[in-house]
Amino acid sequence: MTATSALDNVINLAKRRGFVFQAGEIYGGSRSAWDYGPLGVELKENIKAEWWKTFVRSRADMVGLDSSIILPRDVWKASGHVDTFTDPLVECTQCHKRHRQDHLLEAYEAKKGRAAEGMEQITCPDCGTTGGWTDPQMFSGLMKTYLGPVDNEEGLHYMRPETAQGIFVNFLNVVQAARKKPPFGIGQVGKAFRNEITPGNFIFRTREFEQMEIEYFVPPAQAQEHFDRWVEDCWNWFIDLGLNQDNLRRLDVPAQERAHYSDGTIDLEYRFGFAGGDGWGELMGVANRTDYDLSQHTEHSGTKMQFFDQANDEHYTPYVIEPSFGLTRAMMAFLVDAYAEDEAPNTKGGVDVRTVLKLDPRLAPVKAAVLPLSKKDDLKPVSQDLAAQLRGLWNVDYDDAGAIGRRYRRQDEIGTPFCITVDFDTLEDQAVTIRERDTMQQERVSLDQVKSYLIERLVK
Amino acid sequence: MTATSALDNVINLAKRRGFVFQAGEIYGGSRSAWDYGPLGVELKENIKAEWWKTFVRSRADMVGLDSSIILPRDVWKASGHVDTFTDPLVECTQCHKRHRQDHLLEAYEAKKGRAAEGMEQITCPDCGTTGGWTDPQMFSGLMKTYLGPVDNEEGLHYMRPETAQGIFVNFLNVVQAARKKPPFGIGQVGKAFRNEITPGNFIFRTREFEQMEIEYFVPPAQAQEHFDRWVEDCWNWFIDLGLNQDNLRRLDVPAQERAHYSDGTIDLEYRFGFAGGDGWGELMGVANRTDYDLSQHTEHSGTKMQFFDQANDEHYTPYVIEPSFGLTRAMMAFLVDAYAEDEAPNTKGGVDVRTVLKLDPRLAPVKAAVLPLSKKDDLKPVSQDLAAQLRGLWNVDYDDAGAIGRRYRRQDEIGTPFCITVDFDTLEDQAVTIRERDTMQQERVSLDQVKSYLIERLVK
Repeated sequence: MTATSALDNVINLAKRRGFVFQAGEIYGGSRSAWDYGPLGVELKENIKAEWWKTFVRSRADMVGLDSSIILPRDVWKASGHVDTFTDPLVECTQCHKRHRQDHLLEAYEAKKGRAAEGMEQITCPDCGTTGGWTDPQMFSGLMKTYLGPVDNEEGLHYMRPETAQGIFVNFLNVVQAARKKPPFGIGQVGKAFRNEITPGNFIFRTREFEQMEIEYFVPPAQAQEHFDRWVEDCWNWFIDLGLNQDNLRRLDVPAQERAHYSDGTIDLEYRFGFAGGDGWGELMGVANRTDYDLSQHTEHSGTKMQFFDQANDEHYTPYVIEPSFGLTRAMMAFLVDAYAEDEAPNTKGGVDVRTVLKLDPRLAPVKAAVLPLSKKDDLKPVSQDLAAQLRGLWNVDYDDAGAIGRRYRRQDEIGTPFCITVDFDTLEDQAVTIRERDTMQQERVSLDQVKSYLIERLVK
Repeated sequence: MTATSALDNVINLAKRRGFVFQAGEIYGGSRSAWDYGPLGVELKENIKAEWWKTFVRSRADMVGLDSSIILPRDVWKASGHVDTFTDPLVECTQCHKRHRQDHLLEAYEAKKGRAAEGMEQITCPDCGTTGGWTDPQMFSGLMKTYLGPVDNEEGLHYMRPETAQGIFVNFLNVVQAARKKPPFGIGQVGKAFRNEITPGNFIFRTREFEQMEIEYFVPPAQAQEHFDRWVEDCWNWFIDLGLNQDNLRRLDVPAQERAHYSDGTIDLEYRFGFAGGDGWGELMGVANRTDYDLSQHTEHSGTKMQFFDQANDEHYTPYVIEPSFGLTRAMMAFLVDAYAEDEAPNTKGGVDVRTVLKLDPRLAPVKAAVLPLSKKDDLKPVSQDLAAQLRGLWNVDYDDAGAIGRRYRRQDEIGTPFCITVDFDTLEDQAVTIRERDTMQQERVSLDQVKSYLIERLVK
């Protein structure tokens, strides 16, 4: 199985089982955004919870924040986004579809293994015409809206293209209220919006997306040391949650390709298996934003965004190390990495191919499924009681429809770590059979021990 | 202490301790939105988690969803929002400030105890002029943005004014993927945006806010029964999490004041203690949306938004009961309700007034604080080890600055249920003193028992 077909399989599974739906599908759909179905929202929340636990709650040097999506134009003027958050847009002179010039050039290079010499070598992905392009025009990636009764300059606001600025403008508030001093960081999870010209690759590039960002404030002399440590910590987080390290790599982003605020960026790339290139894409990045943002806000707001170091009796502007994660990209990577096809015994003594999502149990959207062997009323009370008891702790499925083998397959392909079968013996021995997803090993467990059996295996 | 001053005290505390900051404060600030600081984000997430646990995860008849904020214009045309989600706007002819006519009339009635006979009786809240108003103009509450390279009709999209429509347009997807049949519901938590003319009352009325919504699909004949049950369930949720029932009341919303889709609405109102009126405000509402939304989407999209009832071999359009919560309003209510001033013993044998947030432990932003009695190095390793161990499970503070009484006060006013003091005896007896917030009772607990002591009291 090639990486590309794994991605297609994951997309298909994600839609069919309710991880991800196309936004506004009944009105023709949109590539701008995706909706996360019953399983998708659980998986996404589990990723978020693990991130928050690792990087915010467990660390004495971190606090959380949740700032607003819409911020006044002044903020984006100061941050440099109004002036420099632009992309080169070219239009095909044949079919009039618009594309980002840099994406076209990157795709050419990924495919051919060498850079294009000019736009005359580039073929339009929509109509196939080669070399028919307008001159590039700079196009703002900011999405605007108007607050108040009239659509005028005064009401013009931008939706954040990164959660980071909401952290920077609150730097002094947090220092004061949480009594923190560098090195310390502020973590935030939330939506961001970029007016991408060519959204695509499923949930990889969308106009509405979700970020998990940390702005870590340090004395300038310690910037490199903390930068290196954050790259390690981020790498380890993905590996600890089960990503195969062969599918993860570091990219030291060359100066000319970095964001306008960055003095150094290392991206973690994941082998998503996109068609048409080498299949790798950016999963997250760690940037050294220096004192750029705090200095800009000091200059534009007139408020001194500095830290007063009592020990040395001096004010200084901290440097900022920024680990920035795409939540939905992380979700896509975990799905692609967990997707497997292997063999499971069938009732005829042979084997069937089964699809299984080998998600870390901490991420699995459903932690356990209660499966009464028969739909008959005898098994219902004990099965439903068990499910109700477990639902207090976890997201739990209940499925009494169809052959048991088929129900195992349904749970395997959504990554449920434990299937609990209630059978007619249960009425006698007050025990159930618990089957583990990956090994398919079964164990008989007393009903009153099921909860602690699962706690032991699910809570880390 | 009057209700009004309690609200002022809460607002003051919320800003000072980092629950809530003004958005874009260093650029003059905005009333459109607020930022949630380190304590605010924890409190807000705890409310969200309790809501999800009660209404989604623990119930066999509920699933979750997370749909996009930006949806095509077609959706909002079908839902009726483009045409009817408007408010009457009047302008003061003296100071040219704009207000919602209905809010002015409501405020008059709340203050005077009788309805105004006309706008000539209404005084401008900004400049004090009475009766100088323009004729009302209808003003759309929808916030727009443009996707794609050009600001034209094709790119025009709206930011959702309610999360509900993202649920309706996914009705068939969820029925199919999650194999659900009515009565069943879909829950969602997320941001919504309304271009309020007069945002105000702290986090009560903002342009950017967060909702927790359920759309519960039922056979039409069962609508009233489920409506009544949801009103009960919502009421009980607030009471179970500690709201004083004297501060909660039901309002059967008269037909002319209901949203355009509602055939019946009961609001739960909370006594927030706003100045200038009777102090009550809407906390959440349960509406009977009938088959309005699904029928509208059927008509506009051409996709039949119905359920096929196999037992009776018929297609029907379910009715929808919608319990809709404002997350930030819930947070404000829990804060106001928990705020108390009582007396605590001081070191001189007397008593001091203390401020305490009597939040339910499940909601408290910090679950425990580790307080080494002295800053001396002797106590550091054991204190930091204990804090690190507990941080794996909860948000935990560590505070070694100032007199112990003062540190208790700091924890009391943010609602921390347990303060754990590490003293010099700890080095001998391997035990710490745990103090409970409300009773201020202290108990000596062995170090290796602290975790289970807290689990017993914090995990429900």
